[in-house]
Amino acid sequence: MTSEEESAAAPAAGSFDEHNLTQTVLQSVAGAKDPRVKQISEALIRHLHAFIREIEPTEAEWGAAIEFLTKTGHMCTDTRQEFILLSDVLGVSMLVDAINHRLPGRATETTVFGPFYVEPPSFEDGADMRGYLEGVPLYLSGTVRNEAGEPIVGAKVDIWHSNDEGYYDLQKLEERSELAGRGRFLSQSDGSFRAWTVRPAAYPIPNDGPVGKMLDAQGRHPFRPEHVHYMITAPGYRRLVTHLFAQGDKYLTSDVVFGVKSSLIRNYEPREGGTAPDGKAMDGKWLELHHDFVLAHVA
Amino acid sequence: MTSEEESAAAPAAGSFDEHNLTQTVLQSVAGAKDPRVKQISEALIRHLHAFIREIEPTEAEWGAAIEFLTKTGHMCTDTRQEFILLSDVLGVSMLVDAINHRLPGRATETTVFGPFYVEPPSFEDGADMRGYLEGVPLYLSGTVRNEAGEPIVGAKVDIWHSNDEGYYDLQKLEERSELAGRGRFLSQSDGSFRAWTVRPAAYPIPNDGPVGKMLDAQGRHPFRPEHVHYMITAPGYRRLVTHLFAQGDKYLTSDVVFGVKSSLIRNYEPREGGTAPDGKAMDGKWLELHHDFVLAHVA
Ligand SMILES: [Cu+2]
Ligand SMILES: [Fe+3]
Ligand SMILES: [Fe+3]
Repeated sequence: MTSEEESAAAPAAGSFDEHNLTQTVLQSVAGAKDPRVKQISEALIRHLHAFIREIEPTEAEWGAAIEFLTKTGHMCTDTRQEFILLSDVLGVSMLVDAINHRLPGRATETTVFGPFYVEPPSFEDGADMRGYLEGVPLYLSGTVRNEAGEPIVGAKVDIWHSNDEGYYDLQKLEERSELAGRGRFLSQSDGSFRAWTVRPAAYPIPNDGPVGKMLDAQGRHPFRPEHVHYMITAPGYRRLVTHLFAQGDKYLTSDVVFGVKSSLIRNYEPREGGTAPDGKAMDGKWLELHHDFVLAHVA
Repeated sequence: MTSEEESAAAPAAGSFDEHNLTQTVLQSVAGAKDPRVKQISEALIRHLHAFIREIEPTEAEWGAAIEFLTKTGHMCTDTRQEFILLSDVLGVSMLVDAINHRLPGRATETTVFGPFYVEPPSFEDGADMRGYLEGVPLYLSGTVRNEAGEPIVGAKVDIWHSNDEGYYDLQKLEERSELAGRGRFLSQSDGSFRAWTVRPAAYPIPNDGPVGKMLDAQGRHPFRPEHVHYMITAPGYRRLVTHLFAQGDKYLTSDVVFGVKSSLIRNYEPREGGTAPDGKAMDGKWLELHHDFVLAHVA
């Protein structure tokens, strides 16, 4: 018997080839106890294999992918999450956000949470939350209402933003340990809130790691358009996580994390001197940003 | 003007929603300089988004995925590659292997390289490479030929395998710093080679990390069927990386990394006493494993 005949006589059991491999891998997860684990595993296997079959990677390209994932993992620390960054710049974070926030028509649209939130210090209505930040004064105001237009009283309005060079206080803790440019305000009896701070700036996401290199190779800049973050919560309502983007910003159409929705683009209205809405006498340039937020009821 | 009217009047530019998001992310990589980077990026975005749209992850599931990838990255060290393990158990490594080894009909089939190769010590034809390993003696022999059946002289035949408990010498370096159960042999003037060693064993892949947890959740065991690794190289021929699997092993149909091909399942022929092919007088149980390897020419 030649070795070819022996091979042919060997049991066909367990012969995985390019054609049946995906089916074989799918069958391997058929015994998953949790049906959701099974569903996710099967979808992952199908799309991952379809991706591989489409691009037909060389072994060197496969090796580069392993190295990319490994470096991305090694970049992750308590203060840096490179896999979230990867999810963000591939549009996955916004897609997950969209899927989880199919809200009724009138509710304010959501966008990415971002990595720079911490529970902020509480302020009186109308107080200045800039802390040690410097820059052009910005007067923030708005209302919190439900879909029926009724004011929501006592909603927690958490606001945070970068400094005028695009850095968050959290990125500067080694130089300055205080928080700045973030605060919690409570909506008043008419659902309104107001706060003073300074104008933020457009900024690049951290791009000194593997994700930055990927953006570079993809011919992309790492910038997000200027924005102020809001998280608004009230009992009985769905948590609202969103931004207000500065109308006219040059990165609005190319936000590296795809967070922009047109309903969230707002005019940071330029003012000069005069009297602010809270009666304060103003000197020089300042800005006003107003938005009426609508929360959706918990389903 | 109410805030709704203002929103409606805002530029539509940069409005990303669930429906247009994938298209927008695809457009963002249109400027990649390297066409291969563009192609891979586009395919990745399409399949990744299709996966997300199919499973509709909750935000908690997305968070769990980020944590899984992060832990997998943190598990990677110089001696442990958890992302390769992940690629292996999802069938990706074998798919990449298959795509890169569409060989002419007669050439020996390939399988995964595995993580336990180092350049082995050289031995004389017929020498014993077991080193400090103990177990049932195993006589390995074979030939190296090209597709025309001509012997290839002086091919490097690297052989490696686990001990009889399923561990490789590399996994035991802290206890014992020598190599064992691996060797390099040169094919002789008739293309033949032979080596003595001991029988290996089926073994689990390292399953104390995130990949092991995933296998558990998927209802899978972590085992590979018993096998001996071969890497055969000769000038003018494609490098052959393969295994010979032990016929009858209970994991042949469920190899956790999908490496089994029926042409690589071989009878580890049981012997008792008598005379070995090299004339050695034998005592007790031993085994013989023969295979005729066929190398493909470099394209
Ligand atoms: Cu797909
Ligand atoms: Fe931000
Ligand atoms: Fe092995």
